[in-house]
Amino acid sequence: MPINIGIIGLGYWGPNFLRNFVTAEDSKVIICCDIKPDRCKKFATLYPGIEFTQNSDEVISNPKIEAVAIATPAYTHYSLVKHALRSGKHVLVSKPLTNDLTQAQELVMQSDEKDLILQVDHTFIYHPAVERLKNVILNGELGQLYYVDSVRINLGLFQHDVSVVWDLAPHDISIMEYLIDRPVQWVQAVGARHAGQKVESMAYITVQFEDNILGHCHVNWLAPMKIRLTTVGGSRRMAIYDDNLVTEKVKIYDRGVVMNSIEGIYDALVQYRSGDIHAPAIENVEALEREVKHFLHCVQHHKKPITDGRAALRVINILNAAQESIINEGQRVYMSESNKQSEESRNHASTTLPLK
Amino acid sequence: MPINIGIIGLGYWGPNFLRNFVTAEDSKVIICCDIKPDRCKKFATLYPGIEFTQNSDEVISNPKIEAVAIATPAYTHYSLVKHALRSGKHVLVSKPLTNDLTQAQELVMQSDEKDLILQVDHTFIYHPAVERLKNVILNGELGQLYYVDSVRINLGLFQHDVSVVWDLAPHDISIMEYLIDRPVQWVQAVGARHAGQKVESMAYITVQFEDNILGHCHVNWLAPMKIRLTTVGGSRRMAIYDDNLVTEKVKIYDRGVVMNSIEGIYDALVQYRSGDIHAPAIENVEALEREVKHFLHCVQHHKKPITDGRAALRVINILNAAQESIINEGQRVYMSESNKQSEESRNHASTTLPLK
Amino acid sequence: MPINIGIIGLGYWGPNFLRNFVTAEDSKVIICCDIKPDRCKKFATLYPGIEFTQNSDEVISNPKIEAVAIATPAYTHYSLVKHALRSGKHVLVSKPLTNDLTQAQELVMQSDEKDLILQVDHTFIYHPAVERLKNVILNGELGQLYYVDSVRINLGLFQHDVSVVWDLAPHDISIMEYLIDRPVQWVQAVGARHAGQKVESMAYITVQFEDNILGHCHVNWLAPMKIRLTTVGGSRRMAIYDDNLVTEKVKIYDRGVVMNSIEGIYDALVQYRSGDIHAPAIENVEALEREVKHFLHCVQHHKKPITDGRAALRVINILNAAQESIINEGQRVYMSESNKQSEESRNHASTTLPLK
Amino acid sequence: MPINIGIIGLGYWGPNFLRNFVTAEDSKVIICCDIKPDRCKKFATLYPGIEFTQNSDEVISNPKIEAVAIATPAYTHYSLVKHALRSGKHVLVSKPLTNDLTQAQELVMQSDEKDLILQVDHTFIYHPAVERLKNVILNGELGQLYYVDSVRINLGLFQHDVSVVWDLAPHDISIMEYLIDRPVQWVQAVGARHAGQKVESMAYITVQFEDNILGHCHVNWLAPMKIRLTTVGGSRRMAIYDDNLVTEKVKIYDRGVVMNSIEGIYDALVQYRSGDIHAPAIENVEALEREVKHFLHCVQHHKKPITDGRAALRVINILNAAQESIINEGQRVYMSESNKQSEESRNHASTTLPLK
Repeated sequence: MPINIGIIGLGYWGPNFLRNFVTAEDSKVIICCDIKPDRCKKFATLYPGIEFTQNSDEVISNPKIEAVAIATPAYTHYSLVKHALRSGKHVLVSKPLTNDLTQAQELVMQSDEKDLILQVDHTFIYHPAVERLKNVILNGELGQLYYVDSVRINLGLFQHDVSVVWDLAPHDISIMEYLIDRPVQWVQAVGARHAGQKVESMAYITVQFEDNILGHCHVNWLAPMKIRLTTVGGSRRMAIYDDNLVTEKVKIYDRGVVMNSIEGIYDALVQYRSGDIHAPAIENVEALEREVKHFLHCVQHHKKPITDGRAALRVINILNAAQESIINEGQRVYMSESNKQSEESRNHASTTLPLK
Repeated sequence: MPINIGIIGLGYWGPNFLRNFVTAEDSKVIICCDIKPDRCKKFATLYPGIEFTQNSDEVISNPKIEAVAIATPAYTHYSLVKHALRSGKHVLVSKPLTNDLTQAQELVMQSDEKDLILQVDHTFIYHPAVERLKNVILNGELGQLYYVDSVRINLGLFQHDVSVVWDLAPHDISIMEYLIDRPVQWVQAVGARHAGQKVESMAYITVQFEDNILGHCHVNWLAPMKIRLTTVGGSRRMAIYDDNLVTEKVKIYDRGVVMNSIEGIYDALVQYRSGDIHAPAIENVEALEREVKHFLHCVQHHKKPITDGRAALRVINILNAAQESIINEGQRVYMSESNKQSEESRNHASTTLPLK
Repeated sequence: MPINIGIIGLGYWGPNFLRNFVTAEDSKVIICCDIKPDRCKKFATLYPGIEFTQNSDEVISNPKIEAVAIATPAYTHYSLVKHALRSGKHVLVSKPLTNDLTQAQELVMQSDEKDLILQVDHTFIYHPAVERLKNVILNGELGQLYYVDSVRINLGLFQHDVSVVWDLAPHDISIMEYLIDRPVQWVQAVGARHAGQKVESMAYITVQFEDNILGHCHVNWLAPMKIRLTTVGGSRRMAIYDDNLVTEKVKIYDRGVVMNSIEGIYDALVQYRSGDIHAPAIENVEALEREVKHFLHCVQHHKKPITDGRAALRVINILNAAQESIINEGQRVYMSESNKQSEESRNHASTTLPLK
Repeated sequence: MPINIGIIGLGYWGPNFLRNFVTAEDSKVIICCDIKPDRCKKFATLYPGIEFTQNSDEVISNPKIEAVAIATPAYTHYSLVKHALRSGKHVLVSKPLTNDLTQAQELVMQSDEKDLILQVDHTFIYHPAVERLKNVILNGELGQLYYVDSVRINLGLFQHDVSVVWDLAPHDISIMEYLIDRPVQWVQAVGARHAGQKVESMAYITVQFEDNILGHCHVNWLAPMKIRLTTVGGSRRMAIYDDNLVTEKVKIYDRGVVMNSIEGIYDALVQYRSGDIHAPAIENVEALEREVKHFLHCVQHHKKPITDGRAALRVINILNAAQESIINEGQRVYMSESNKQSEESRNHASTTLPLK
C-alpha cells in the first residue's frame, strides 16, 4: 500500500518534493498546499489528480494523509511540524529544522513521544557522492582524518529572512558532521553584510571536531562563479567531491606525506607522496529521489532516518554557535549541554543508506 | 652601466634570482654564495663567468658589489640584510623580510638612514595578473570593494622551521594588502598541525580592512590538488585571478546584485544580475623578471620600490597577528601602534608598476 | 486560442516535446501516442488530462488536432509526416526529416502544396548559444569565415537502425549549415564500424562550402568522455560554443593572424595576435522551449520556420553525401541538382529568431 | 667518459637540445653553431665554456665531436645529416627527418652502412604519458584497439616553408604509429589554406591501419585555444592523453560497450558500460631529457633507438601520403613498396624505453 502524502509549500523546493513523491512507487500524493493561488493553479494543471489548497490545515488535518512533506520558509517550520506531529503525521521537512535550538529540541522530543518519523531534508547526505566519501572514510582508505574543507559559493538570491549561514551552510555542516561523525568542541565564525543588507551574505565557519579534525566552510551569495567543493584530508589519502562536475564528482588522491628523519637544518622533515588518482563511477541518481525512498522506507518499516531530528539538532547546534560567534566578534563558542543531548543519540553509522 | 649583483642562497628560490639577474640588461652577477658546496659546483658549471663561494661575507663585503639578492631561510634574513645594509649594499630579499616585527622595523629604519633600497620579494605583486586586478580596482570597474578571498593550497613540502602561515600566506596577504590598500582593523586565524608536526600545515586567516572589506585566506600544504585562486567581490563587478590557468588567468564578471523594493514576505529583497565575462589578455611574462627590472630601476633612479620595507612591514604585521591569534585560541588581534607606523608610509598607489 | 497538439512517440525524445507543449502558453496537448502501452500508462499518470493511444491514426485523424509533433524512429517519418500533411495537420518532426532524399523532397513539396508548416526539430538552431554565434558572424565580428569544426562525441547508446552519421551528425551539420549559410561544393567522409556492428559508430565528415570555408565534424558513440564543441575560425576573430559548460558556453577570442612582409628565410610570414576573450551572457533557456514557441508562432502567423523542410533538405543532402562517400571509399561527393533545389529556397537569414 | 656533442641550430628548438645535453651526465657539449651571430652571442654569455660558430662545417668536421644534434629547418636536414654521417658522427635530428621520402631512405641506408646511430627527435614518444599509453595497450588493458584520435591545435606561428602537415602532424602521426604499431593501408587528408598563405594552415588526416584500426588527426595553426588531446578507443577500455593538464595527463576510462541480444525494433543492440576512471601518476620529467638520455645510451651501447631512421621513415611515409592526398583532391593514397621497406624493420616493441 502506498503511503498517502500531503505537501506544504510549492515555492523553490516544494515542487521537487512533489515530483519525487509523485514518481516514487511507495507513495501517493493526495493534497498540496501553497498560500499563493497561482502556484496552486500552475501545479493543478500539471497534476489534475491531486487536490490543491491554500490552507495548510486542510493538509495536516486530512485523515487520509499519513505523512507530510514541508517546504516552507524556515521560520514557519516550528508551528507546522508541531501541528503535523500532534496530528499524528510523519514529517519530512526542508532544512533547517528550525532556526531556534529550543524549538528544534521540542520537536525532536515530540516526535519521540508520538513515535513518529521526523526526517529533515539534508539532501546532500543522500547524494551518492557523499555516500561514497562516507564509505571511503569508514573503510579506512583515507587513514586518520585531518580536515574537511567545504566551499559553497555562487551568485545567489539573497534571502531577506535568513543569512547565508542558515541558507547555504546547512548543506556543508550536515555533510561535514556526517563524514566526521565526532563531537564538536567549538565553533568560530566570521561574516560580512554587504549590499546594504541586514543579514550576512558571506561567512567563514570553523568547526573543531574531536581527534584534532578541523572543519571549515566558506559560504557566499556574492561570488562570481559557482563552486561546490568538499575536500577531505587524511593521513593516507585525500578525497574531493566536486559537485560542479558531471563525471568525476568524487576523486580519491593517493597522496599524502611521508615522515623522514631530520637530515639537516635546510631539509624538509616530511616529504610528500603523489600517487594515482581514482574517480569511482558514481550512480547518476538524484539525491532527493534516494532521500524520498529512504523516508518512505523508514515510515513503512519504522526505522530511524539517517537525517532524523537528532542529526538535524547537531547541525542546528553548530549553525547556532556560528551565528553566536559572528555576533560576538568571532569568539569561539564551546559546545556543551545541548550538544551532549544530540551526541548521546549519535548512532555512529557503520553502514550507509539502508535504502532497500 | 650594469649594476653589479651578489646573490646569497642557491636553494629553492635563489636560482630564479640568479637566472633573472643574469639575463636582465642592467645587471651583472659577480658572485654567488651557498653554504652547500655541491650547489655552488652545479651552478659554476652552468655559469663559468661567475665567482662562487660558501662564505656570505665574501659577497657582502665585496667592494665591486652594489646590490645583494638574498634567498636564504627566513630566520637568517635579519643578520644578512643588516650586514648588507651596513656595508652600503642595496638589498632584494626573499619573503618574508623577517619573522619578527621588531627586527623588520629595525631593518626598515636602517635602510632609511643609509638611504638604500630595501625591496622584499613579494613576487606576485609584480605579476601582470595582479597588476590588472589593481588597475580594475583603481579605475572603479568593481565599484565598492566587498571582499578578497584567496586560496593557496597544494601538496607541498613541509618546512620544519616555519609554519604554512609564514611560508604560503605571505603571497596572499601581500596581494590582498596591495589590492585593498587600506588599514587593517583586526586579524583572526585558526590553524591545525597534522602528521606529527610542530608547525601548522593548514590555516585560515581572516583580515578585516577598513570600509567593511573582508579579507580571508586559506593556506594548506596538505591538499590533494593545487589551487591558486584570488576572488575580489565588488558592488558593480567581481574579478578572479586563477593562477592555475595558462590563459584566462584574470576574469572580470559583470555580475552583482540589484536592490529591489520589498514585495512580499516570500520574495527576495535583492536580485542578482549575471552579465558578460571578460578575460583580458595578460602579458605572458615571468613576475620575477618584472620584479628584478623594477629593483634595478629603483636602484638606478633612487626610487621607492612598490614592495619596499614598509610594504613588507604591513604584511609582517598581519602574519604576526595571525600567528598570535592561532596561539591565543583564535582571538581577534586588533592592530594598533606598529600598524600606524607602516600605515603612515602608505603611498596609496594611484598608478602601478613604474617599470620603464 | 491555444493550438491543439497531438504527439506521436514517447520514447527518448517525445517526452521533451510533451513537456514543452504542455507548458507552452499557446498550445494544448490533446492526445499522445506510443506503440508501447507501458509508456502511455506512465505518462497518463503524470498527465491525467491528456488522452493516450497506441494507434497513431487516432492522433493524425483527430479533427480537434491542428498540429502533430512526431518523435519516432527516422524510418517511420516519411509515412507519418505524409499522412499528417495529407490530413491537413502542421507538423513538427524530430531530426532527420527522413533518411532518404527523394522522400524528403516529396514531403517538402507536399507541405508547400497544402500550405502547411513543416518544421524539423534541429534543436540546436534554437539554442541561444548558436543564435549568438550566428549574430557574431552576421555582424562581421569574426571577419571572413575560415572554417567550422564540430566535435560531438561521447559514450552513447548504439542505434541498430541508423549509423552515428544519421544519429549525431544532423546536429553538427545543421549548426554548420546555418552558420555558414552558403552552398556546399562537396562532401567527403570516413567511418568505422566497431564492436561487431553493421553501422558506423564513428565518422569524420568534411564539408567544403563556397568561399573556401571548410566544415568538419567528428561524431563518435565510442568516446570515453563527452565533448560538444563547435569552433568557428575567422580572419578577425574566432569563436567557440562549448555545450559542456554551464556558463561561458560561448567565447569570442580576439585572436588571429597579422600579415608581415618577408624578413628572412627563417622568419615567419605571419604573426599571431592574441587579445582578450569575451564570454557573453547566454540566456539560460532550453533550446526546445524556444523551438516549440517558434513552431507555434509560425503556425499562428503562417510564417516559414527557420528549420523548415528546405533547411532540413540541405542537411539531408549533406548527410546523404557523407554516407555515400563512406560507402565509396571516401570519394568526394560533389553536390549538384538536388542541392540547387534546396539552395534556391535559402533565405539568407539576416536576422535570427522571430520569436515574438 | 661523456660523449662529445656538437649542436647545429639555436633557433626555436635547438636551445632545448643545448640545455639537455649540457645537464645530461653522459655528454659534454663542445661546440654549437647558428647562422645568426646574435644567437651565438646570446648563448655564449650563458655558456662561456662552449665554443660557438656560424659555420656548421666546424661542428661536423670537428674530430673531437662524436655526435651531432641538428635543429635546423627541415629542408636543410638532408645535406647536414648526410654530411654528419659521412664524417662518422652519430646524429640526433629534429623532426621530420626530411620532407622527401627518397632522401630519408638514403639517410637511413647511409646510417646502416656506416653503423651509426640516426635518431629522429619525435619527442612525444619519450613522454612518460605516451609510454604509459603504450604499456596500457601492450598489457591488454584496452582490449582490441578501435581507433586513435589526435587533436593538436592552437594559435601558432605560421611557417613559410612547410605546411601544418609537416609542422604539427609529425607529433600526432609518430604517437599514433608508435601506439598502434601496425602497417598502414591507406591515408587520406584534406587541408585548407587561409590568410593568403601558400601552405595549409589546417588539415585533417585519416590513417587506416590494419585490423580495422582508424587513426585520425586534426592539426590547426588557426585555432583560438590550445588543445593537445590523444584518445585511444578499445573494446575493453579507453584512454586519453591530455597534454594541457598538469596532473591527470593520462586517464584510463573503464568504459565500453556490452553486446545484447535483439529485444525489439526500438531497442539498442548494444549498451554502454560506464565504470571508474583512473589517472595514474605520471613521472614529471621533460620528454626531451629522457630522449637525450636514450640517445646517449644508444650511442654508448650501440643500441637501436626507438625513434630510429626507420621509425622516422614510417612517419614520413604517412605525412607524404597525406600531402599527396591533399593535392589530389582528397583521394586515398594506398601504401605499398616504400611502406614495406620500413615495415620490414618494425621491431614490434614488446617493452618500452630501455633507458637504463
